[in-house]
Amino acid sequence: MSDENPVVKLLRGQIGQVIDNGFSPAGTWLAGTIKAVESGSCTVDFTVRHEMTNPVGTIHGGMIGLMCDEVIGMAAYSLYNEYHFTSVNLVVDFLSKAVKDEVLSVKATVIRKGRTIINLECIVHNAEGKLVARAQQNMVRTSLKLR
Amino acid sequence: MSDENPVVKLLRGQIGQVIDNGFSPAGTWLAGTIKAVESGSCTVDFTVRHEMTNPVGTIHGGMIGLMCDEVIGMAAYSLYNEYHFTSVNLVVDFLSKAVKDEVLSVKATVIRKGRTIINLECIVHNAEGKLVARAQQNMVRTSLKLR
Amino acid sequence: MSDENPVVKLLRGQIGQVIDNGFSPAGTWLAGTIKAVESGSCTVDFTVRHEMTNPVGTIHGGMIGLMCDEVIGMAAYSLYNEYHFTSVNLVVDFLSKAVKDEVLSVKATVIRKGRTIINLECIVHNAEGKLVARAQQNMVRTSLKLR
Amino acid sequence: MSDENPVVKLLRGQIGQVIDNGFSPAGTWLAGTIKAVESGSCTVDFTVRHEMTNPVGTIHGGMIGLMCDEVIGMAAYSLYNEYHFTSVNLVVDFLSKAVKDEVLSVKATVIRKGRTIINLECIVHNAEGKLVARAQQNMVRTSLKLR
Repeated sequence: MSDENPVVKLLRGQIGQVIDNGFSPAGTWLAGTIKAVESGSCTVDFTVRHEMTNPVGTIHGGMIGLMCDEVIGMAAYSLYNEYHFTSVNLVVDFLSKAVKDEVLSVKATVIRKGRTIINLECIVHNAEGKLVARAQQNMVRTSLKLR
Repeated sequence: MSDENPVVKLLRGQIGQVIDNGFSPAGTWLAGTIKAVESGSCTVDFTVRHEMTNPVGTIHGGMIGLMCDEVIGMAAYSLYNEYHFTSVNLVVDFLSKAVKDEVLSVKATVIRKGRTIINLECIVHNAEGKLVARAQQNMVRTSLKLR
Repeated sequence: MSDENPVVKLLRGQIGQVIDNGFSPAGTWLAGTIKAVESGSCTVDFTVRHEMTNPVGTIHGGMIGLMCDEVIGMAAYSLYNEYHFTSVNLVVDFLSKAVKDEVLSVKATVIRKGRTIINLECIVHNAEGKLVARAQQNMVRTSLKLR
Repeated sequence: MSDENPVVKLLRGQIGQVIDNGFSPAGTWLAGTIKAVESGSCTVDFTVRHEMTNPVGTIHGGMIGLMCDEVIGMAAYSLYNEYHFTSVNLVVDFLSKAVKDEVLSVKATVIRKGRTIINLECIVHNAEGKLVARAQQNMVRTSLKLR
């Protein structure tokens, strides 16, 4: 999965820059920084901001899910599919805490690309390499043509 | 589960008001409006804002998960537990779309309250009563005493 | 969803009998008894046998998942779909124990029937009405024509 | 995780033999063959038998879930925990088919061992190395002392 298709080329051109005006309004709000892209894989860093935390002062589990869902969508997009795929489900396991100002590295990878279903997984590490969360998702092909 | 414990009383006092300065910074960002509370159940309305949407113009799946996770946490909290419970996992099934400015009604309910694990489900409807998503979560007791 | 389509009629004809020679070899092994069928819903009772238990003497979690998957498949089938649908995923939450010789009532219900994806849930109760497990599944349409 | 604790030693002594009289009645029914064991990881091969198939002639999804749940339980057991852990949930993604007489290699691995929760994943390959399914599970500590 390493050929540089147009989407991979586009995303690679943004490596190292904070996403502050992307196609995804939610992605822009998350303000991640793309670190690595291949066809079928994408790694994005996110800084935990105050409004991403819960009453106990750690990152809100739903925010971890949101980060995973965003990067999973980018990894699916990086396949340069003919049709748009949409999320069927999202499963997240929360493994350890993260606090405000921490940088989380979120890596999504296509596990299986079928004609109708794409299955992906996502892992979240903190800066010390500790596993913070794991997610998996199934996406289904829609009739929306992308190219 | 209908006795009015102190948490239920507190949350009921906020019914009808936009949460704009709550204990949960993420909850404040979501800016929901509590509609109903019982011990073990909570319903909150959220308006889909621009920064909650995806490149296709519909609500970002991760934002649905975030809303569910927030209300699930409130439903668990409404049990007035002696100890804080934290999320083990979150599972979301995406069933239909919602767009900017739509109001989503998110209802979380405790399915089983064990000594160590609480199991909850969450359903999301739009204003026309169409099912937008379903979620389920397991939470585990921590050693953090709440009372 | 209450019209009696040919599949509903077929399954209703088997109500009250142990499934000992069905189309599904795994279903035959499970030896359930159909209790109720509608288009989009199916309830089957199963007796927990010795070979369904784990080292602690209670029902093996995977056996609960197997029962759920079987009845979920029947509920999808009861829609009398034009095409065969296959499982994308299965999520099970284990809520309480069951032991050898207990009868478990497994009810699966279609939550949403889309053109490509069917979403279903399943609940498992014991004879005293206690909730033993909950499951949810997404199925995707295949190209195998059923009628 | 490679020290040979008493459980690892026990399980390693059974490598290469069909499990036909194990502690787990369900495991005995599955009749797997242990291929590899470490503390926190276990690989077992299973042959798909007729009674494990569905009406379409392929392995029943629930049987895949059962195999995963069994090996996940062995991987958790291989940690030589002081207390028994029980399953909180099971999530399975079905990725490709398998038919009668195929041998499936099921490998479960501990992802995170906490004091109260163990998180594990499981992957299922066929003899050609094709990915058939992926699963993940959370287990919670019980009060049952094992040693």
